[in-house]
Amino acid sequence: MWKVGIIGATGYTGLVLISTLLPHPEIKITLVTSNTYKGKKISEIFPLLKGLFEEKLVPTDENHKGKCDVYFLCLPHGSSMEMAKTLFDSKSIIIDLSADFRFEDVNVYEQTYTKHTAKKLIPNAVFGLPELYRNRIKGAKLIANPGCYPTSAILALYPLLKETLIKGDIFIDSKSGVSGAGRETKLGSMFCEVSEGFRAYNVGIHRHEPEIQKEVSKFVSMKVTFVPHLLPINRGILTTIYSKLKTFTKTKGLIKLYKEIYRDEPFIRIMEEGTYPDTHFTRFSNYCDIGIKSFDDGRVVIISAIDNLVKGASGQAVQNMNIALGIDETLALTGIPQYP
Amino acid sequence: MWKVGIIGATGYTGLVLISTLLPHPEIKITLVTSNTYKGKKISEIFPLLKGLFEEKLVPTDENHKGKCDVYFLCLPHGSSMEMAKTLFDSKSIIIDLSADFRFEDVNVYEQTYTKHTAKKLIPNAVFGLPELYRNRIKGAKLIANPGCYPTSAILALYPLLKETLIKGDIFIDSKSGVSGAGRETKLGSMFCEVSEGFRAYNVGIHRHEPEIQKEVSKFVSMKVTFVPHLLPINRGILTTIYSKLKTFTKTKGLIKLYKEIYRDEPFIRIMEEGTYPDTHFTRFSNYCDIGIKSFDDGRVVIISAIDNLVKGASGQAVQNMNIALGIDETLALTGIPQYP
Amino acid sequence: MWKVGIIGATGYTGLVLISTLLPHPEIKITLVTSNTYKGKKISEIFPLLKGLFEEKLVPTDENHKGKCDVYFLCLPHGSSMEMAKTLFDSKSIIIDLSADFRFEDVNVYEQTYTKHTAKKLIPNAVFGLPELYRNRIKGAKLIANPGCYPTSAILALYPLLKETLIKGDIFIDSKSGVSGAGRETKLGSMFCEVSEGFRAYNVGIHRHEPEIQKEVSKFVSMKVTFVPHLLPINRGILTTIYSKLKTFTKTKGLIKLYKEIYRDEPFIRIMEEGTYPDTHFTRFSNYCDIGIKSFDDGRVVIISAIDNLVKGASGQAVQNMNIALGIDETLALTGIPQYP
Amino acid sequence: MWKVGIIGATGYTGLVLISTLLPHPEIKITLVTSNTYKGKKISEIFPLLKGLFEEKLVPTDENHKGKCDVYFLCLPHGSSMEMAKTLFDSKSIIIDLSADFRFEDVNVYEQTYTKHTAKKLIPNAVFGLPELYRNRIKGAKLIANPGCYPTSAILALYPLLKETLIKGDIFIDSKSGVSGAGRETKLGSMFCEVSEGFRAYNVGIHRHEPEIQKEVSKFVSMKVTFVPHLLPINRGILTTIYSKLKTFTKTKGLIKLYKEIYRDEPFIRIMEEGTYPDTHFTRFSNYCDIGIKSFDDGRVVIISAIDNLVKGASGQAVQNMNIALGIDETLALTGIPQYP
Repeated sequence: MWKVGIIGATGYTGLVLISTLLPHPEIKITLVTSNTYKGKKISEIFPLLKGLFEEKLVPTDENHKGKCDVYFLCLPHGSSMEMAKTLFDSKSIIIDLSADFRFEDVNVYEQTYTKHTAKKLIPNAVFGLPELYRNRIKGAKLIANPGCYPTSAILALYPLLKETLIKGDIFIDSKSGVSGAGRETKLGSMFCEVSEGFRAYNVGIHRHEPEIQKEVSKFVSMKVTFVPHLLPINRGILTTIYSKLKTFTKTKGLIKLYKEIYRDEPFIRIMEEGTYPDTHFTRFSNYCDIGIKSFDDGRVVIISAIDNLVKGASGQAVQNMNIALGIDETLALTGIPQYP
Repeated sequence: MWKVGIIGATGYTGLVLISTLLPHPEIKITLVTSNTYKGKKISEIFPLLKGLFEEKLVPTDENHKGKCDVYFLCLPHGSSMEMAKTLFDSKSIIIDLSADFRFEDVNVYEQTYTKHTAKKLIPNAVFGLPELYRNRIKGAKLIANPGCYPTSAILALYPLLKETLIKGDIFIDSKSGVSGAGRETKLGSMFCEVSEGFRAYNVGIHRHEPEIQKEVSKFVSMKVTFVPHLLPINRGILTTIYSKLKTFTKTKGLIKLYKEIYRDEPFIRIMEEGTYPDTHFTRFSNYCDIGIKSFDDGRVVIISAIDNLVKGASGQAVQNMNIALGIDETLALTGIPQYP
Repeated sequence: MWKVGIIGATGYTGLVLISTLLPHPEIKITLVTSNTYKGKKISEIFPLLKGLFEEKLVPTDENHKGKCDVYFLCLPHGSSMEMAKTLFDSKSIIIDLSADFRFEDVNVYEQTYTKHTAKKLIPNAVFGLPELYRNRIKGAKLIANPGCYPTSAILALYPLLKETLIKGDIFIDSKSGVSGAGRETKLGSMFCEVSEGFRAYNVGIHRHEPEIQKEVSKFVSMKVTFVPHLLPINRGILTTIYSKLKTFTKTKGLIKLYKEIYRDEPFIRIMEEGTYPDTHFTRFSNYCDIGIKSFDDGRVVIISAIDNLVKGASGQAVQNMNIALGIDETLALTGIPQYP
Repeated sequence: MWKVGIIGATGYTGLVLISTLLPHPEIKITLVTSNTYKGKKISEIFPLLKGLFEEKLVPTDENHKGKCDVYFLCLPHGSSMEMAKTLFDSKSIIIDLSADFRFEDVNVYEQTYTKHTAKKLIPNAVFGLPELYRNRIKGAKLIANPGCYPTSAILALYPLLKETLIKGDIFIDSKSGVSGAGRETKLGSMFCEVSEGFRAYNVGIHRHEPEIQKEVSKFVSMKVTFVPHLLPINRGILTTIYSKLKTFTKTKGLIKLYKEIYRDEPFIRIMEEGTYPDTHFTRFSNYCDIGIKSFDDGRVVIISAIDNLVKGASGQAVQNMNIALGIDETLALTGIPQYP
């Protein structure tokens, strides 16, 4: 059994890590931390864990080096790189759910977030999107788990990028459930400020835009326009992407291409012609569903759905852990989507 | 007092017409019809009207010609044109909330909907979007109330179209609350099929796309791509539009242009730079809020919000009635948006 | 025009006061205050007011004595009594939406809330439930606007209490929308902590229980048991009350009694036999709908619905203002319930 | 591997049976039926099953006798007893999710539902509430799976009934998510008729009242009053029960009693003093959480939460299957509750 620590366990990504990992046959959660709730049992914070997992929370700020084989960092950016500096060694695997190690180019990181205080670790970091970087994740010691929006956008675009089929601007219209904003109290996440409403936010200035752009730029020179919106649901991201193909390809052909490129991927499902994803159908699962339609002048629409807390965060983190440990990539991730 | 009839009064547009018109100082609802519920009081169908409006429903299929000064037709397409044939004369005003008279070109209508059986009336019809066609609405006898999505999209695009500032494709990503699907029972509108989910539907094949296209085509030759999505809220449409400007104009300049063009419009509000519409802030009102942002390579994002049942349907219908009757355009439409 | 001030205008009760009072023909809002947002325009806090009401917020902590004819206090308990001490005089009317002046017996207040620092004012205060205390509200200078739950419970019970028909314990099962918890950020009001869930809270220890009890005790000696629950909706309270009648009376008879007792009340609607309230049908209105059913062994169920922000707070406050000013009690309160 | 058939597989209980049973290590779903969708793959009806379970639906009306070891009947009452007549034999186990075999007394059934056409089978039927009837479920060939509301109410009351501690009337105030109404289209289950509203329905005349009453009557003579309400959530029942104890017992003592009586139950969790269930914390799991509070004059409040589709339907059905087959009762039911 591998020993696993969850650093900052009392947010939604922490909770989903716990409920995903509890039935995992090859690991054991031996450490859960929180500064705010230290000393309490995690089941006091999340009563749904009553009788299932009653581990006591220890302070995040203690030294946890060497205690675990795998550490999941569920901390704010900034704090996360500091924690990584403390924990990093040649033995354990660090999977960071913050943005701190997602950028190869530290300048882009610093323009987007804050001063980077662990630059030496950057070369060790792998961008943890298994569908693109599985080989590098194997054996990695520091894995930067991608953002939720970037996961949904990059997986939707990747086959077109890989085959350099796109020529026009890339407009990414994403809609996310509220859990994407985390569990800290803020006015914009209050029930009455969200329910029965819908709005765009951070138009053209969201921090996930550079994260998407850096991956797109590895293939093509187009600018992406990213507009996130807040959905009055708990979980789920639906991303609708608009662009133009170099040469017209029928929808059928594009679907064939997507199925081909993703044929060995356990968590990607390509929809049949005329059907499109619904966040309902990926909810509580690690799936990313993708639908496509092209128009005869080359316009193309790609739609993807994920659960932002699973494939967009904790599920993908466990997938990365499985790959890095060299065990079956799907362990503990075979949960069936749930609705209603 | 003008006498008003609501033909097909037991759907959501009927209900919103009733609650909008009840406090109207210059009209009186003298006729409400329903084949399904004939003989019942409207307050039995909508108990919220108890004590406020207890009119009895008469059959839609009776002959109502000459009874009213204004008729609102809240019928399915097809039925609506038949009713219009029956009611049309030189005295009364017919405001049709269906699609039957929205298309000048009957071929487009017939490709999109069904065979048109009242072609002779088409030349009498005016597309009831006051911000574009106010002068023609004055004195009109047959007003085709626009679709909810087209209202949100055309009002967002109009200033750019009018000034022919656009050169790229126009991608229209719309999200609508469930009331847009009406009050007939259908699986896709059931609570459990909608709540906590989000999906695109009728991608590139929605009937409102030709309605938007026909207005856009009066100004520019670009193709519009229209993707509607179903929001788990009761009311509200948010439309996010992506395109490219011929020459870069700063956001500030675009906002100034929009304010200029819409300066006398009582129901259009242009947001300040960096702020964007929320369906919350137009809910239960006849407002259309619009926000804009441009990027230095000419990419542009325009976002509009309306209440689909008010500015997207019954509110706009009352606005059209006021204009057609030559009375104050804002009568009964000064309701303040409501949230939470 | 009477001059009205809203002290603490940036919460939900402040917002609903503003949107209720703006169309009021005999008053003008001349003062809105906030310490947190002082200097900003109220329309920056609530963008739905853009173009409708752009008054600047002045600090709550300034001296506002003598500026207005009517003051609405939308402050936390404790702060409210301090403000009342400052503002109270023989000319202006103070309507306090906090609990500070709801209890004739200061001991009950202090056991339930906190030390009372304005005891001298208590004899001036009237409990602002017009259906019970209209005559005392006329001419009152200090009106304690009732709590939302007590309004729904007392109005449902009043006819049975007045006629002393009850003999059993009174079990009050209330369910409230989230806006009842106000607009301050707190974990329990976050979207993800509420949506798709349902829970009881403060079972038997909620502060509104003594407020209900004190009114009930004026008529009978029974103990009330009050269990509030949190509904995943924005607005609305539904209260279901269980008790036992001294002697069996048919449902029809009870309905007749309720209609009789409330026959002149503009905002009470008694449902017909076999139909029961839905929060939908009172939403955005000042109505309280009541349904009743009795069983042949004397068990009785009474169900009431209100909009917690209207009849449960700001609407009732305006009703109290109208009564106290001696103007038409329904002015600005004739809004029709809105759904969907 | 036991062979399992799901008769009527395209409703919500069918879907939850499928997703619960797919990972079950000792059974295999070999038959899924539907008259409406026969010939289609179940994954066309529920796209979330794409790639996971693609079985073709065969007509319900074919003869399925002898094909399976276990049959789950997810049919309307009336149809269910007819199907049971066809399938019943000495080898296979029938688990009926309808009400057809829940009543020992056929008269009560017939007063509540319809004429019973399979009376001979009634003596074979066991009421499938494992916490009360586990021993009789072992080896049963016909199991009547309890209703969702009765499950929540009876489990909450059972310890007090068993120890005959109650003397007063029993008032049961239940609130259920919309999935309890099934997947057939009906106006009352439409999104816009439910969302942002809350109402009681079938007050004192709901069919689950006699089902609760018959269990209660086995212990005490009190009448139960049952008032169900419709919650705007997908899943979950919260039941709040009010009654009076013969002699006052402190909350602590009651909690101890409940823990004692349910100490070996894998799916019952008793909350600590001062904490109460939230449907969030049982969602997607087979748990029933129970909280209790007593007052010093003997009044008592008991609150229970279940997922209506799991412990209230399909999960309990699988629990019954496991017991009847003599395998580990918790197989496939160890899923952790999920939120947000």
